[in-house]
Amino acid sequence: MNSHDEPGMGPLLSSIGRLADFKSLDEAELPRLADELREFLIDAVAKTGGHIGPNLGVVELTMAVHRVFDSPHDQVVFDTGHQSYVHKVLTGRAPQFGDLRKRDGLTGYPSREESPHDLVENSHASTSLSYADGLAKANALAGSDRHVVALVGDGALTGGMCWEALNNIAARDDLKLVIIVNDNGRSYAPTVGGLAKRLSGVRLNPGYEPALEKIKDTVERIPVVGRAAYSAMHAAKTGIKDALAPQGMFSDLGIKYVGPVDGHDLTDLAEALEKAKGYGGPVIVHALTEKGRGWAPAREDEAEQMHSPSAAFDPITGEPIAASKRRWTGVFADALVEQAEARPDLVAITAAMPGPTGVNKFMERFPERFFDVGIAEQHAVTSAAGLAMNGLHPVVAVYSTFMNRAFDQTVLDVAMHRLPVTFVLDRAGITGPDGPSHYGIWDTSIFRVVPGMRIAAPRDEVTLREEFAEAVAVDDGPTMLRFPTGAIPAENLSPVDSREGLDFLVENDDAELLIVACGALAGTAVAAATLLAEQGVRSTVVDPRWIAPVPDALVKLAGQYRLIATVEDGIRTGGFGDALAQSLRDAGEDVPLIDFAVARDWHPHGTRAQLLADLGLTPAAIAEKLHAEAARRLR
Amino acid sequence: MNSHDEPGMGPLLSSIGRLADFKSLDEAELPRLADELREFLIDAVAKTGGHIGPNLGVVELTMAVHRVFDSPHDQVVFDTGHQSYVHKVLTGRAPQFGDLRKRDGLTGYPSREESPHDLVENSHASTSLSYADGLAKANALAGSDRHVVALVGDGALTGGMCWEALNNIAARDDLKLVIIVNDNGRSYAPTVGGLAKRLSGVRLNPGYEPALEKIKDTVERIPVVGRAAYSAMHAAKTGIKDALAPQGMFSDLGIKYVGPVDGHDLTDLAEALEKAKGYGGPVIVHALTEKGRGWAPAREDEAEQMHSPSAAFDPITGEPIAASKRRWTGVFADALVEQAEARPDLVAITAAMPGPTGVNKFMERFPERFFDVGIAEQHAVTSAAGLAMNGLHPVVAVYSTFMNRAFDQTVLDVAMHRLPVTFVLDRAGITGPDGPSHYGIWDTSIFRVVPGMRIAAPRDEVTLREEFAEAVAVDDGPTMLRFPTGAIPAENLSPVDSREGLDFLVENDDAELLIVACGALAGTAVAAATLLAEQGVRSTVVDPRWIAPVPDALVKLAGQYRLIATVEDGIRTGGFGDALAQSLRDAGEDVPLIDFAVARDWHPHGTRAQLLADLGLTPAAIAEKLHAEAARRLR
Repeated sequence: MNSHDEPGMGPLLSSIGRLADFKSLDEAELPRLADELREFLIDAVAKTGGHIGPNLGVVELTMAVHRVFDSPHDQVVFDTGHQSYVHKVLTGRAPQFGDLRKRDGLTGYPSREESPHDLVENSHASTSLSYADGLAKANALAGSDRHVVALVGDGALTGGMCWEALNNIAARDDLKLVIIVNDNGRSYAPTVGGLAKRLSGVRLNPGYEPALEKIKDTVERIPVVGRAAYSAMHAAKTGIKDALAPQGMFSDLGIKYVGPVDGHDLTDLAEALEKAKGYGGPVIVHALTEKGRGWAPAREDEAEQMHSPSAAFDPITGEPIAASKRRWTGVFADALVEQAEARPDLVAITAAMPGPTGVNKFMERFPERFFDVGIAEQHAVTSAAGLAMNGLHPVVAVYSTFMNRAFDQTVLDVAMHRLPVTFVLDRAGITGPDGPSHYGIWDTSIFRVVPGMRIAAPRDEVTLREEFAEAVAVDDGPTMLRFPTGAIPAENLSPVDSREGLDFLVENDDAELLIVACGALAGTAVAAATLLAEQGVRSTVVDPRWIAPVPDALVKLAGQYRLIATVEDGIRTGGFGDALAQSLRDAGEDVPLIDFAVARDWHPHGTRAQLLADLGLTPAAIAEKLHAEAARRLR
Repeated sequence: MNSHDEPGMGPLLSSIGRLADFKSLDEAELPRLADELREFLIDAVAKTGGHIGPNLGVVELTMAVHRVFDSPHDQVVFDTGHQSYVHKVLTGRAPQFGDLRKRDGLTGYPSREESPHDLVENSHASTSLSYADGLAKANALAGSDRHVVALVGDGALTGGMCWEALNNIAARDDLKLVIIVNDNGRSYAPTVGGLAKRLSGVRLNPGYEPALEKIKDTVERIPVVGRAAYSAMHAAKTGIKDALAPQGMFSDLGIKYVGPVDGHDLTDLAEALEKAKGYGGPVIVHALTEKGRGWAPAREDEAEQMHSPSAAFDPITGEPIAASKRRWTGVFADALVEQAEARPDLVAITAAMPGPTGVNKFMERFPERFFDVGIAEQHAVTSAAGLAMNGLHPVVAVYSTFMNRAFDQTVLDVAMHRLPVTFVLDRAGITGPDGPSHYGIWDTSIFRVVPGMRIAAPRDEVTLREEFAEAVAVDDGPTMLRFPTGAIPAENLSPVDSREGLDFLVENDDAELLIVACGALAGTAVAAATLLAEQGVRSTVVDPRWIAPVPDALVKLAGQYRLIATVEDGIRTGGFGDALAQSLRDAGEDVPLIDFAVARDWHPHGTRAQLLADLGLTPAAIAEKLHAEAARRLR
């Protein structure tokens, strides 16, 4: 089943069957191993897609961690686990990289099933310090000598959870907890905000002579870091800002600080980590690294495409191998700019992902109306509420899965104040290779609960543009659009008729079965209807366009049928099918309803197509079940 | 309808019909007005209940804000809006305080319906800086000279949202934004963590001579502050910690800092605010205040009872007037300690509310197993995941409404890792006088979506103890208990029979109507059944105890009836009724279901009883509707 197109391994790398093999290597061999690791990762990810940039940046850091600490006795937690590839290789999983992110293959994040060296599978940013706080407190209660090591990026530090955790960690001087800040000046996009300014300031603090030497070195070798250092230095010289080292911030909290160290110098790293390990209380080690180090396409990636290329790419140029198709994201990017041209009140917000969400087009066209808030979905939503209170219409563009971070703020800050904010949820539904923590299957179920929230699910380019225009025209409460990852259907799915806001995609006057198709699964529903028709079961297929609250016209329509099916790619529990069923109950309609949706469970990684098939969300599976139900109920 | 038992007003206060009246007072009259305001608030809140401590602490601060700034042109945002009583009085609402938090009376939080001076109604902590960021950015885009003023407590600064906001605010030097940190060393409980240590350190920083004089003064006059200052000074003398002023932390971010100022000195406050106003960019003004100032019972309130007494109290002693009944919280407090005696792996976490959630008993008994994380629900949940990964069973005790802050962490950090964490949600359902932002109506709908989550709703003392014991016995995933605010039923509601985990509260062999009662509304359901029986409609009333996932035994039972009613006090959209309906559909049972629950809307403040009556959740209303349905469906 798997392809086993194995990436090439150098001789040192080939000798690592388990972590002990790495630990027994001579120190002198380590730089060569670092080179082999980079070659291996570039080759491997070129074949499968995956997070290349972040992993190239943490090669030496990960090596140093595993030299100094003793996993799994010591516990290593990766923030945003996509930076764990090097860790996977060093713990003996190199041979499996041919199947990275493929079905039944290696996951793109730590996995407790794969290895006892993996602890935390969540890939949402800014959680590692909270996990580490809990792990270390439990160790302290048990009187254990275990160390907990958390690797967190400067980008993740813009998320409020890190602050909550640091505030707690600082209150304990007995936790054996080493926090490694992997500072590459970027989250997905370059890290924003006051913190980023301070971190860049560290590069010229005269109080850190030895580090400074290292950094001057780095400046010469590494163009990206060099540019940042130059700007910081320039700012300092012109007296605009004092350049204070960030350890001020950490020591204000009362946490010991070691650094900054060159995150690509194995000797310095090992020394800093040994020092931190010996301290006995919580320590922050500040390492300066370069995202994408050793590979120009990832290092110079201003458009954030090489953070995590989704498909195979050319290892020399970084160009994707498959021909680019038009994507949902790109259509939204255009629609946003189009609306914004006519509407000076439209502003856009992203949480550190201008490229992946498509708001970068808007950002370039209207920089003053664009806000990248860092990896801070809560702030994204509540600052949107503030903007809306003063007469603007914010568009918050975010991955569906990350929107879960801001449920409370959506309920109370936006909806309770009846503020016009439009949420655009990319990567809704089953996403695929990134596994369960990236699935955007929760949005419909949790956000339809919010009073006043209106949710649309476009099915193609035309409806995405139309429904987005409808959403930003709403002025008395929040709206939400959800659409999946990947290519948008090449052809629009034109309705045969549209009445009372409903698009009829298939219509049969004498049909007793109504199939209600949500968003991207409209094509699947139409194909299922075609299969059913071939088997003698006639049906009508309707796209309600707005799926929450359930349109009255849809309830009325459904009441005229004898069997209803709903098709959606969100979680079935509390989903659109549930919503329509409740509306039918309320209308006194006892018509039976079959809801096709994502079962409440943890689903593995794989392609979107594979997973939808597993979940019974294919034309054939839907047609088969509906054929049986029709036989039972309509005869 | 309203009682109009008006609190006494002094002569100056009586002269304030609108904000302009206050602004035209002579500066010399202000200290007298401050006294009148305190007398008025104590008298008023003694009659109605409400947040007294926080408001006594911000009398001068609020006065100074309204002297220096020009509301509503300048925009004032209160974090955790319960500290807005003084603001309400100064903006002309003193005459309405007789009806504070009563139905159709003055709300306990800012209200946009009440006044153009009120902007933000949300009462969840740590949001104000995000709102202010959005408001100020909109003002900047419009080229307006408006100032935005945010009042935020030191407790709220322990919440990650504040950090996210500060990080964004720091990146802009053009925002007319004044952040007033109201530092009283407390959130609900004394503020915890590294931040609190630093803030207390400010009180003896020698770099702030004039402020120090003020504070020495304060130390002598105010016992609570004096104690904190003494501890900090002692720590510094013994060399354990350097005492650094917190402006280090803020200036590390690049935000201008003014302070510390005596938050009870009107002249100093006005001077600091004028300075901040003139600066043009974002500024932090750090004011030291005393919670409960001027009233001993609130000032010396170590048990957090006077933060917000829920009922009327004696203005001299602070003792509640009504006789104390046994409360849900108290039963949980005992059950937790009881379980913890037998289970050394049980640990407890609260987000700044040990008293209100009842974990204070556990805290006293097992201090080393207790963690107050500050107002930081996200960290509470993910650090619980860390504790659980290392073999402990954390009990996270939180108000239902605040649990919305940690949806994402519950899904990915706890449930996806199948970790045994028990969430205990106090104040679930309709809470009453605190209004919509405190309603715990969301929990069932959003958390039943989470794979592996099990939710119980105890109906009385016996079931609370039993179901809590069942919850902490689960070792392969999260569990949740939800119960309401207020007195627990004096008598337990014993089942007539219990089978397959279901408690039968009323059973009739020939009944065609099954009433499924959730938690605290079990008594209501039984009473409705009694009324129905009097009208000739026989029913069975069952309490499933565990409401998510829907027990198989309940689905099987329901299939034997011809009409099902569900009764719950959560939001109807996606609630337990919806869940049972979906389970019945899945089982091929077409039995009709009527779900009694809270309509998806914003409900006003009032007593729990009043609101339940509005929502049709009384025995009479339920019986009436079911009588009609029975007539239609069962005959």
